[in-house]
Amino acid sequence: MSVQNPTIIYTLTDEAPLLATCSLLPIIKTFTATAGIEVTQSDISVATRILAEFPDYLSEAQRVPDNLAELGHLTHESDTNIIKLPNISASVPQLKAAVSELRAKGFMIPEYPENPQTEAELQLASRYSKILGSAVNPVLREGNSDRRAPPAVKRYAQKNPHSMGKWSPASRTHVSYMRRGDFYSSEQSVVMEQDGAVRMELVTPDGEVQVLKTIPLLAGEIIDSMYMSKQALCAFYAEQLADAKDSGILFSLHVKATMMKVSHPIVFGHAVKVFFKDLFAKYGELFEQLGVNPNNGMSSVLEKIQSLPAEIRVEIEQDIADGYAQQPELAMVDSDKGITNLHAPNDVIVDASMPAMIRNGGKMWGVDGKLKETKAVIPESTFARIYQEMIGFCKTNGAFDPTTMGSVPNVGLMAQKAEEYGSHDKTFEITTPGTARVVDEQGKVLMQHQVETGDIWRTCQTKDAAVRDWVKLAVKRARLSNTPAVFWLDPYRPHEAQLIQKVELYLQDHDLNGVEIHIMSQVRAMRFTLERIIRGMDTISVTGNILRDYLTDLFPIMELGTSAKMLSIVPMMEGGSMFETGAGGSAPKHVQQLVAENHLRWDSLGEFLAMASSLEEVSIKTGNPQAQILATTLDQATGKLLDNRKSPAARVGQLDTRGSHFYLALYWAEALAAQTQDAGLAARFAPLAKALADNEQVIIAELNAVQGQPVDLDGYYCADMDKMTAVMRPSATFNATLAAV
Amino acid sequence: MSVQNPTIIYTLTDEAPLLATCSLLPIIKTFTATAGIEVTQSDISVATRILAEFPDYLSEAQRVPDNLAELGHLTHESDTNIIKLPNISASVPQLKAAVSELRAKGFMIPEYPENPQTEAELQLASRYSKILGSAVNPVLREGNSDRRAPPAVKRYAQKNPHSMGKWSPASRTHVSYMRRGDFYSSEQSVVMEQDGAVRMELVTPDGEVQVLKTIPLLAGEIIDSMYMSKQALCAFYAEQLADAKDSGILFSLHVKATMMKVSHPIVFGHAVKVFFKDLFAKYGELFEQLGVNPNNGMSSVLEKIQSLPAEIRVEIEQDIADGYAQQPELAMVDSDKGITNLHAPNDVIVDASMPAMIRNGGKMWGVDGKLKETKAVIPESTFARIYQEMIGFCKTNGAFDPTTMGSVPNVGLMAQKAEEYGSHDKTFEITTPGTARVVDEQGKVLMQHQVETGDIWRTCQTKDAAVRDWVKLAVKRARLSNTPAVFWLDPYRPHEAQLIQKVELYLQDHDLNGVEIHIMSQVRAMRFTLERIIRGMDTISVTGNILRDYLTDLFPIMELGTSAKMLSIVPMMEGGSMFETGAGGSAPKHVQQLVAENHLRWDSLGEFLAMASSLEEVSIKTGNPQAQILATTLDQATGKLLDNRKSPAARVGQLDTRGSHFYLALYWAEALAAQTQDAGLAARFAPLAKALADNEQVIIAELNAVQGQPVDLDGYYCADMDKMTAVMRPSATFNATLAAV
Repeated sequence: MSVQNPTIIYTLTDEAPLLATCSLLPIIKTFTATAGIEVTQSDISVATRILAEFPDYLSEAQRVPDNLAELGHLTHESDTNIIKLPNISASVPQLKAAVSELRAKGFMIPEYPENPQTEAELQLASRYSKILGSAVNPVLREGNSDRRAPPAVKRYAQKNPHSMGKWSPASRTHVSYMRRGDFYSSEQSVVMEQDGAVRMELVTPDGEVQVLKTIPLLAGEIIDSMYMSKQALCAFYAEQLADAKDSGILFSLHVKATMMKVSHPIVFGHAVKVFFKDLFAKYGELFEQLGVNPNNGMSSVLEKIQSLPAEIRVEIEQDIADGYAQQPELAMVDSDKGITNLHAPNDVIVDASMPAMIRNGGKMWGVDGKLKETKAVIPESTFARIYQEMIGFCKTNGAFDPTTMGSVPNVGLMAQKAEEYGSHDKTFEITTPGTARVVDEQGKVLMQHQVETGDIWRTCQTKDAAVRDWVKLAVKRARLSNTPAVFWLDPYRPHEAQLIQKVELYLQDHDLNGVEIHIMSQVRAMRFTLERIIRGMDTISVTGNILRDYLTDLFPIMELGTSAKMLSIVPMMEGGSMFETGAGGSAPKHVQQLVAENHLRWDSLGEFLAMASSLEEVSIKTGNPQAQILATTLDQATGKLLDNRKSPAARVGQLDTRGSHFYLALYWAEALAAQTQDAGLAARFAPLAKALADNEQVIIAELNAVQGQPVDLDGYYCADMDKMTAVMRPSATFNATLAAV
Repeated sequence: MSVQNPTIIYTLTDEAPLLATCSLLPIIKTFTATAGIEVTQSDISVATRILAEFPDYLSEAQRVPDNLAELGHLTHESDTNIIKLPNISASVPQLKAAVSELRAKGFMIPEYPENPQTEAELQLASRYSKILGSAVNPVLREGNSDRRAPPAVKRYAQKNPHSMGKWSPASRTHVSYMRRGDFYSSEQSVVMEQDGAVRMELVTPDGEVQVLKTIPLLAGEIIDSMYMSKQALCAFYAEQLADAKDSGILFSLHVKATMMKVSHPIVFGHAVKVFFKDLFAKYGELFEQLGVNPNNGMSSVLEKIQSLPAEIRVEIEQDIADGYAQQPELAMVDSDKGITNLHAPNDVIVDASMPAMIRNGGKMWGVDGKLKETKAVIPESTFARIYQEMIGFCKTNGAFDPTTMGSVPNVGLMAQKAEEYGSHDKTFEITTPGTARVVDEQGKVLMQHQVETGDIWRTCQTKDAAVRDWVKLAVKRARLSNTPAVFWLDPYRPHEAQLIQKVELYLQDHDLNGVEIHIMSQVRAMRFTLERIIRGMDTISVTGNILRDYLTDLFPIMELGTSAKMLSIVPMMEGGSMFETGAGGSAPKHVQQLVAENHLRWDSLGEFLAMASSLEEVSIKTGNPQAQILATTLDQATGKLLDNRKSPAARVGQLDTRGSHFYLALYWAEALAAQTQDAGLAARFAPLAKALADNEQVIIAELNAVQGQPVDLDGYYCADMDKMTAVMRPSATFNATLAAV
């Protein structure tokens, strides 16, 4: 890349964002080309990532480059500028479906080995594990995180508040979390004095030393060791089930199996087994023969028993029904379809489900489709506390008021796979009792725990350079936005106590005059922030990696009704930038709707906002003033689009994603034509603005005319790009007008 | 008083403490006389205070000195040393009963005018107002407050934990408080730049200026003006009644009419009128004719309708029953006797009732005598928040564990009638709409509010010297006990924002090296303290006057099961000291039990602790080493008494107050005999120790033998001192042994 030819890399991902891209990217390219900015694309869809992992199974023609790895390299370049759209964090069922689809299309990649036993299967499983779950972000996020609500979005939400459920001060809803035996309770933490490596070892009672992992570490790096006790976890579930039943409220388990892809399916599986204790006692052996995996939820049971003779299956189904009847009522994922909270580990994702519950006045859906008070069970206590704190606050102060509430931007520690979110490969389900220990190269035992079979043991690492960059970013944001910044760090937790020391040290790097910086435990920080929020004041949350993820859903959902409208920037440690668009997932339901009735309701607001920030970055980096004009006018267009309510509507026949993109193009062209800084640009866009305005009715009619009929994309994970493009660009008039620029 | 002849003033008060004094004081005098310390007594019972107020109605022989005024003067002397026992904070019914009793005994003081109309009645009411409510403490508390759990008491509670109700995380219990229209919401605050006076004026719409009060103020003094809106209060009650009914929980009103003796009866009365809206609509005129005063609660209605013909009375009683049926279930003061929460304003006193509820797992008694979840209604929000905070904490963390929980000593701003507790004479129920304003001598309007008829308007003052002394005491206590001290000050509240400035200024007077001082809003301070408490850590609460009162009940009741066991010291600003014994009231039920069955269960632990501190103070002030020995040995005796469980038991036939005093004398004598610092003292007490030990069985038998029969004290407020003494000293052996010293 050269300064003369600035490039923005636009990612192709999956599902609704990919469909939207088929419509939006041609518009963007038309506009940016006028300023000599190239927008290239990079396909990091789950299907492409699978193909890139298995060239050895593909013909030469079928092979694809490893785009994700390439992007990963580019994150270390100072002029890298990536627009990253939401992608699929594949669960096992999703991965299997993608594999099937690819194989059906002639890509003979191997089947996913669900219960790997042989060496070959284990190797395959290991290769597939790179694609499972949240596999993209850890590669690309070579920087810390800067997320905030753009002013236009905040203003729009204040003028057009989303609905908020009423909170009763007498609500029974609460969060239950473990008081002992969880990761929080067992955590130990040390800081490396010098570069080196540590070994994770399990010492069995007869003295055998199994080395589970060797981890290279840098000087100053924090390494934590912690375990979750299976016994304590199961006892906790039993208590909470009894208590939910006594209290007459729903039971609802909230984990994040997409991200905590090793530990949380296990945590989920134990809930399934405790809930259906009698069922698993009765059929345990049969289930094992059938290959039932409780970590995949009751869906695994229901799927596997299909192969049984009808009379046995019916008996089991009756026993399942009895199991539901004996236990407290479960919160439902989809009461119409009978999908319960324990159906599949990825259905309920804590950072999305808890904000939704809080927005609903602390209620979740019961089996009868009614909203009910709920015991939200979040076994690991570390971050569960923040939800209990917010729930308590809502009981005391009522629901938040989006028209007046303050905003909570986030500066998140994320670079270099920090903390728990980087610990998948250092997480183990213990298979034999013993001493789990972390040993340095000199053989010194740094940390150790007594563990039992079934306990989950992990280590987590956090690089010193990432922490230092994070502190710098926090101070910068506090100063730029003239807003207090609060480090959410719990001195009672060993890892965070280490972080507090580093933060206090690295704060000394900066001029702190005129900036307000606090360090508070998570619950105190939450309270401090909430006390300000209801008084209309903003507070920057400066958090670790998981809280970054949780809070950038939680607060935006209260403030804006969605987390998809946040500006999400990753200022890379090496100088480049990544602009993430939305955090609301890749919307499979939207694809279903498109396929069924050719209406797409994906809101590309996140792309608009990211694009403007990306263009601004180009301008700063390359001194290209036209890039800044494109950025400014794009923000103006976005604001006008919001004010004129030209976002996609939910129902068929109404304006959808495509129509919304048309209005963005119209308003952007108008803003460019109207600006006076660059007469050449204005002259160039005036005809486009006029043509789009003149043809508004024709184009909208053409866009809406196609709605109402099913469409065929020839695939889901690996749909046909030409077909998708044809579906997403149905207005000949619009296409021709753009092409004429 | 001279240094050679140190004197401790022991107050004679009312009810159970006075009865206990009849037994304890002779023991104390016997011991202290050996060190040349004189213990004098000063009668400040409610009856004596009435007599002192009305010499013009009494014969020369009947007149008594104004002991309280004299003690008030002594608080300004540097060598004053007062032991202050709990006394009656007289409600109107109590005052009337005391007057009746005095008149029956020939003291022809005037009747209390309940609805004063004439000039003469108003004057009488004004004279009686000096005796109503908490009238003693404001006179004597010429210093700030230092309260803490003595180590022996804390250790005892940890070894012998009181019962704590279980808290459910799904509990519906909560506190409701006003969000607008209360004192908190309307408060304004200014600091006087120089000595002067301000006028409280009400300006009517036609421009008439009514001067309600002139208040002399000192430079640096804080003066606040605030009002509570009657309309907002009544709307709030209606909402809360509906919400309690919807939620299916008890409704319970919590005020402190004893202390807030002008404002809180009015606040209480509005609750009665809103609860029984239909009743007062139907019978308003009749009730007025009958002299019903809703501010005295439903007891006033029930009393006044007794004069009506039976058929009308029965109809009204039916309407009252209907009223109860329509509204949410009320929390009961005494479900056996049908005494509801709205019966009388002094029955439920917030700082006692809320801790009791929290100890009971967040439940109060329903009409069926069962514990139930409750909406605790505390209209004024200022301090209500702390209870909601603790309730939320208990829902999250469960009940406190007395065996491990930390302790919360208090340093309270109290000197010179600080804050709301000094505002009785500056509180007015507005009789005409207008502008309520505070004007200085130059005519400048310092603060003003628009008020309506029925609003309660008040000003509160806080002397600068008191604040400065309070800050000094806080730093001293933080250093002496090596414990963090937290100023509970809410920056959002104007008065406390002024205090924060003063605290920050006066902290500069002190060396803060090695002491940990925080300033936090009340809810944050509560949370900070509770997070420490459950980890076994102590935290000094440094609070204003009302929170001092509230917290020194709240935390001791959690920690020790009672607030009566706290060491409560008032280090006077002029150098003297007052040692208060217990904060648990004067226990009318204990008197009832004594009269019925000659068993007194008053626990004199507070007196023991106060006496030891008082003796220590004598030693420090006068250099009398024997006083220190008496103090040390008394504390040893108290510890032994606790360990040996020689505190009074509840039931007749068991050890009571008198027996407990015997053991104190025995252990104190033994400790004195055993100490080696002063051979003379040891020799002097050895025979007593031996005699008491030898006669233990005889004395206990004599003390217990009298139990089981009713006794006659010839009065209640003004009982016969000789009869009380005879009842309280029934062991001839014990009396003779003491007399022999």
